[in-house]
Amino acid sequence: MGARAGGGGLELRFGSINLLLLLIFFITSLFLNVYFIFFFFSYSSVFSPWSVPGWSRSAAEEAEAVAAISCSGHGRAFVDGVMIDGRPSCECNTCYHGSDCSLHSVDCPADADSGNPLFLEPYWYRHAKGSAVVVAGWHRMGYVTTGENFISVELERHIRMLHRNVGNAVADDRFIIFGAGSTQLLYALVHALSPHNSSSPASVVASIPYYPVYRMQVDLFDSKLAEWRGVTSNWVNESSSSSSSSSDGSMNNFIEFVTSPNNPDGLLKHSILGGSSVIYDYAYYWPHFTAIPAASDHNVMIFSSSKLSGHAGSRWALIKDEQVYKKAIEYMKLNTMGVSRDTQLRMLKIIKVILAENGRKGDIFSFGYQTMRERWTKLNKVVSKSRRFSLQTIPSQYCNYFKTIRGPSPAYAWLKCERDEDQECDVVLKNAGINGREGSLFEADDRYVRLSLVQTQDDFDQLVQKMDALVSDHQSISSV
Amino acid sequence: MGARAGGGGLELRFGSINLLLLLIFFITSLFLNVYFIFFFFSYSSVFSPWSVPGWSRSAAEEAEAVAAISCSGHGRAFVDGVMIDGRPSCECNTCYHGSDCSLHSVDCPADADSGNPLFLEPYWYRHAKGSAVVVAGWHRMGYVTTGENFISVELERHIRMLHRNVGNAVADDRFIIFGAGSTQLLYALVHALSPHNSSSPASVVASIPYYPVYRMQVDLFDSKLAEWRGVTSNWVNESSSSSSSSSDGSMNNFIEFVTSPNNPDGLLKHSILGGSSVIYDYAYYWPHFTAIPAASDHNVMIFSSSKLSGHAGSRWALIKDEQVYKKAIEYMKLNTMGVSRDTQLRMLKIIKVILAENGRKGDIFSFGYQTMRERWTKLNKVVSKSRRFSLQTIPSQYCNYFKTIRGPSPAYAWLKCERDEDQECDVVLKNAGINGREGSLFEADDRYVRLSLVQTQDDFDQLVQKMDALVSDHQSISSV
Repeated sequence: MGARAGGGGLELRFGSINLLLLLIFFITSLFLNVYFIFFFFSYSSVFSPWSVPGWSRSAAEEAEAVAAISCSGHGRAFVDGVMIDGRPSCECNTCYHGSDCSLHSVDCPADADSGNPLFLEPYWYRHAKGSAVVVAGWHRMGYVTTGENFISVELERHIRMLHRNVGNAVADDRFIIFGAGSTQLLYALVHALSPHNSSSPASVVASIPYYPVYRMQVDLFDSKLAEWRGVTSNWVNESSSSSSSSSDGSMNNFIEFVTSPNNPDGLLKHSILGGSSVIYDYAYYWPHFTAIPAASDHNVMIFSSSKLSGHAGSRWALIKDEQVYKKAIEYMKLNTMGVSRDTQLRMLKIIKVILAENGRKGDIFSFGYQTMRERWTKLNKVVSKSRRFSLQTIPSQYCNYFKTIRGPSPAYAWLKCERDEDQECDVVLKNAGINGREGSLFEADDRYVRLSLVQTQDDFDQLVQKMDALVSDHQSISSV
Repeated sequence: MGARAGGGGLELRFGSINLLLLLIFFITSLFLNVYFIFFFFSYSSVFSPWSVPGWSRSAAEEAEAVAAISCSGHGRAFVDGVMIDGRPSCECNTCYHGSDCSLHSVDCPADADSGNPLFLEPYWYRHAKGSAVVVAGWHRMGYVTTGENFISVELERHIRMLHRNVGNAVADDRFIIFGAGSTQLLYALVHALSPHNSSSPASVVASIPYYPVYRMQVDLFDSKLAEWRGVTSNWVNESSSSSSSSSDGSMNNFIEFVTSPNNPDGLLKHSILGGSSVIYDYAYYWPHFTAIPAASDHNVMIFSSSKLSGHAGSRWALIKDEQVYKKAIEYMKLNTMGVSRDTQLRMLKIIKVILAENGRKGDIFSFGYQTMRERWTKLNKVVSKSRRFSLQTIPSQYCNYFKTIRGPSPAYAWLKCERDEDQECDVVLKNAGINGREGSLFEADDRYVRLSLVQTQDDFDQLVQKMDALVSDHQSISSV
């Protein structure tokens, strides 16, 4: 490159290759700028340095910042968690503590008592994008819902789609009620099925072992409309008439609870009395926990979001009879004036995600089944090391959803202490550092203990570890 | 510019000014590139083309897109609204319809019946940013809350702050229960205050005119623990003993409901019986609706989110007595197993926004008071045009929150038909195209009608318009 003064200005003799390179870089730079500008305008609804940022942005940033807080894989932080040092604190799994949940407590008992459905938490971490929902400050401030009687039209529509896809219940030509919390609908239906103009209350029954809440509700609410009358099998003769509930106040006013698969033993059940006032509690009737032999078709069927998606706290009912439906709605109206619109919005999102993946390899039911099957297999392996304990037997069965025969994957282990002297099985376990739920709570023998298998992987690992130690202790002491 | 072939490559003689310009543009473009790159990295938590976009982004985009749907100011769309043409449809205010709510129905009656607290909707549009909340797919999936007994620690803390700031209740040294829906806590407390080991049920009473749900709940739930015994004043002699509820099953087991300010007439009330089992329903005891003369200090005080922030569907109670608190929790446990975690998260956000503005000129109480005062003034102006109707008189009073004397701004008008022949006031109004709630529902005379003033501006405008027409009709017919 050289310079030569002369005629009309300085002439720079620029190397031709240098000039070519300069032009290339310049054009590249220009293209890059055009790209950036185009990008900004495309996404200006979310973010743009030239217009006012979206109103939802700070809520989004807040949620993502909290989600990024590390709790060492043994806990998690939430937006509304207890504030420590200006940010929500980690909420640790059982037996873990410390500001990032990395410290393990040595002599801490395993929690196999509670039914917190956290085994599905990892699934929702993987589906963070689709399952998040923004609730605006003005979202559904009134009592009004798009559908009649407190339900959202879209939520109702998606629940029907879900039942159709999974094939576990006939949902068409049914009324749907969405209940508040996990227990409201159970009693709302006892209330709705009770005869309101009879001199004697309805008799509420269930088969042993049964979910204690059925009895506790009837006892606590102590209504004149319904009384707890104990075990179903005791009343088979009394209600052998196949007619529906009579209004003459006779002893034919039975309301039978049937839980299928059952809590605590995981077996599929059917009505014993065969009357018309049967409440089928299908909380666990999803492919996570049981084969789906057929789409159930009964008058009153209750499902639970807790055991479907892991989100504790909502149930819905499919009801054939309009009168029963109306009475249940009346109860709900006066009990809670309907259901949280925030919860209905969230459940709609959750169910949409489930439906989007339905039938595919990584769908929630595959994930749930694989997790529960693995846990059941592991626990069986440990328990079968000795004869001190036994677990319930659940047959393999053809599943209409997975279109194959599948092994058991129940939500709970219904453990039995086989040794004569182990009459209080929950005490035996407690002494070995395992908290379970004693059989007498389900009106069964205290030789039985319910062990929850639905919690976090940490909870399950701790259960297996302590169980293994307990069984090994026995092996070393007694002869096998 | 020229070209000269020769030695080792093409030499381009580029004009020096052109080269200078090229260099200037290139450097400018480079700076722009650097700026854009820096910008992206600063905001990459929200958006970045090089890293995975934030998982909350699509939820944020969805919510903002729906919020931007125009409903002509006479409605709004929600994320979970009924889908029409691939997007949520507008949900229109009463008497408006059409895909964008711009069409007004001519002969449509004004809705002054329902208590949907939508008068606060504009406040939340203005506070869109602070009041939005992102609910992650894995948010609080279990039954567990950070506090004991179903309440979030942070929510509880903020409720106490709120009462302290507003000065409407003593919240320290009190247990707090957060209830599901707007009616659950009312009955939970009837249940908790009832004697559980007495031969005779508790007697539930209220003063006319009273909120019908109190009676309807007791009647419908038909428990052996409590019975509706009607009007408080009838029982003054029976319970004149000032001792607390006796366990001998005598007639001293009174549970008195006191609503203050009262629904429907907006007057501040006190207990008549003066017993210890008084449930103070303070749903309306906020500066929107009444002067706050003092911080209330009773055993059982219930508040409502619906009438505080406009978000229908939650109540909380401040309780002194631990036994009462425990019994109420037991009821809630079996009734709904606690309260929606989604709702608690949302209410925390809402209350934070309210607290952030507390005491400032544009705070929610100023906004609410100004809106309700204006409506009350307008309605009074119309009604006082003739002697056919009258409204309740509420005295101006000193308010400890606004630190000044303030005029009335009740949630409801308790309208009375003064003409002899207008014995069924609700029918008179219905014929004039106004739907109100008849007095007999509150166990008062049917000369009274409750008109709701808390709904949208459209609802209020339509009410005033029809009222004006009705009053003017009367004027033109009869002599003034």
